[in-house]
Amino acid sequence: MTSTSGTAPSSVKLLGQEEAIEIDKELFSEYQFSVDQLMELAGLSCAQVIERVYPVEQLPNKGAVLVVCGPGNNGGDGLVCARHLSMFGYYPSVFYPKRSSSELMKRLVTQTEALDIPYLSYLPDAQQISHSFGLIVDAIFGFSFKPPIREPFDDVLHKLQQVKSPVACIDIPSGWDVETGPPKSGAAVIPDCLISLTAPKKCAVHFRGRHHFLGGRFIPSTLAQKYELNLPDFPGSD
Amino acid sequence: MTSTSGTAPSSVKLLGQEEAIEIDKELFSEYQFSVDQLMELAGLSCAQVIERVYPVEQLPNKGAVLVVCGPGNNGGDGLVCARHLSMFGYYPSVFYPKRSSSELMKRLVTQTEALDIPYLSYLPDAQQISHSFGLIVDAIFGFSFKPPIREPFDDVLHKLQQVKSPVACIDIPSGWDVETGPPKSGAAVIPDCLISLTAPKKCAVHFRGRHHFLGGRFIPSTLAQKYELNLPDFPGSD
Repeated sequence: MTSTSGTAPSSVKLLGQEEAIEIDKELFSEYQFSVDQLMELAGLSCAQVIERVYPVEQLPNKGAVLVVCGPGNNGGDGLVCARHLSMFGYYPSVFYPKRSSSELMKRLVTQTEALDIPYLSYLPDAQQISHSFGLIVDAIFGFSFKPPIREPFDDVLHKLQQVKSPVACIDIPSGWDVETGPPKSGAAVIPDCLISLTAPKKCAVHFRGRHHFLGGRFIPSTLAQKYELNLPDFPGSD
Repeated sequence: MTSTSGTAPSSVKLLGQEEAIEIDKELFSEYQFSVDQLMELAGLSCAQVIERVYPVEQLPNKGAVLVVCGPGNNGGDGLVCARHLSMFGYYPSVFYPKRSSSELMKRLVTQTEALDIPYLSYLPDAQQISHSFGLIVDAIFGFSFKPPIREPFDDVLHKLQQVKSPVACIDIPSGWDVETGPPKSGAAVIPDCLISLTAPKKCAVHFRGRHHFLGGRFIPSTLAQKYELNLPDFPGSD
């Protein structure tokens, strides 16, 4: 992962939604990655970013973290992230209100349950969340999200918008348009940390939080060249 | 990963072959990990160990590394390791003489080919290997290996035993018995670095190389307790 200190560096290409979807397809078809593999690497890179930006000993409540997961692959990244955070000594709890019927997502839940990671049956109000969790991980919507926001996530975003704890967003701040950024009306999270996967999306120019990272180092250079991603050199094994 | 400086610490349990096979089965059945996931984490941890022990700028030939892969899961860990080494700036080449027909292994090959990682059509002699590659990664046999060693690996081990470049072994030094260690007769690699996955196997007490790491941090604590693995605390996200 590479710190890009606040905003994405101007040299890195910002992806539109269609282009992000195309690259994703190509990773599965041409390069034959499995969703298992890429989700594992994505979720692990998010946990590693969190470990660097919000060290467990600096979080209140012994590293209690709330991971909010959507029904799609972004939610899967969140489940993998929660598992690795637990291995790193954090105490993640998960809120995952719309369960996917995919076998992979079910297995990811089983893996977190094996680590005694609790699932919340409902989302408390913003004050209670801020009191209980020193960090929120937003794994609700990813680069393929298209409005409108359906229930229960309208209510979820409304609550998360008011929390005082920092919010770390996986790939896209939920509620944002992938290209145009924060909504003119309606709720959205306010990101303190944005972990762009593969490459930042166009909405990243609107990011005003403190930490912007590029996670998930699995793009073959031929693919980076084809889409002119102009990715930064990753130092060492980061 | 945790450095255990030379030999495995006496407090960490050393696994016998049957126990290692049982834990492996349980990770897939009870905890519903996929081979894709665990192989990705295992191979990545090996690449991270190598990046720490043999930094690319300290290797001759611009970081040319030879990864020798067997037909089973140990070979798969090697293919994943090669891919991540390439992303870290090394120049891995692969020797993988007995190709597995499994879909996963085929996909792993495709992923390395997408990174322009070359495959050797035959294994040169020891002098040529030592001249061309500053490091050998031994991903031939893992914890489920049972003798006898079949061709072409008898010849492969004979050559690797004579190389002057350091050898980093994934899980088990190939040619060793999982429990009793180096063979009384017959060829085996001479490990400089041993990366034990999950937990060290009994043969690790015979390890006389410089670096012993524990890689692949994916054991739920309930499983570690059940098998009394007594794993060390991993510092941070290592």
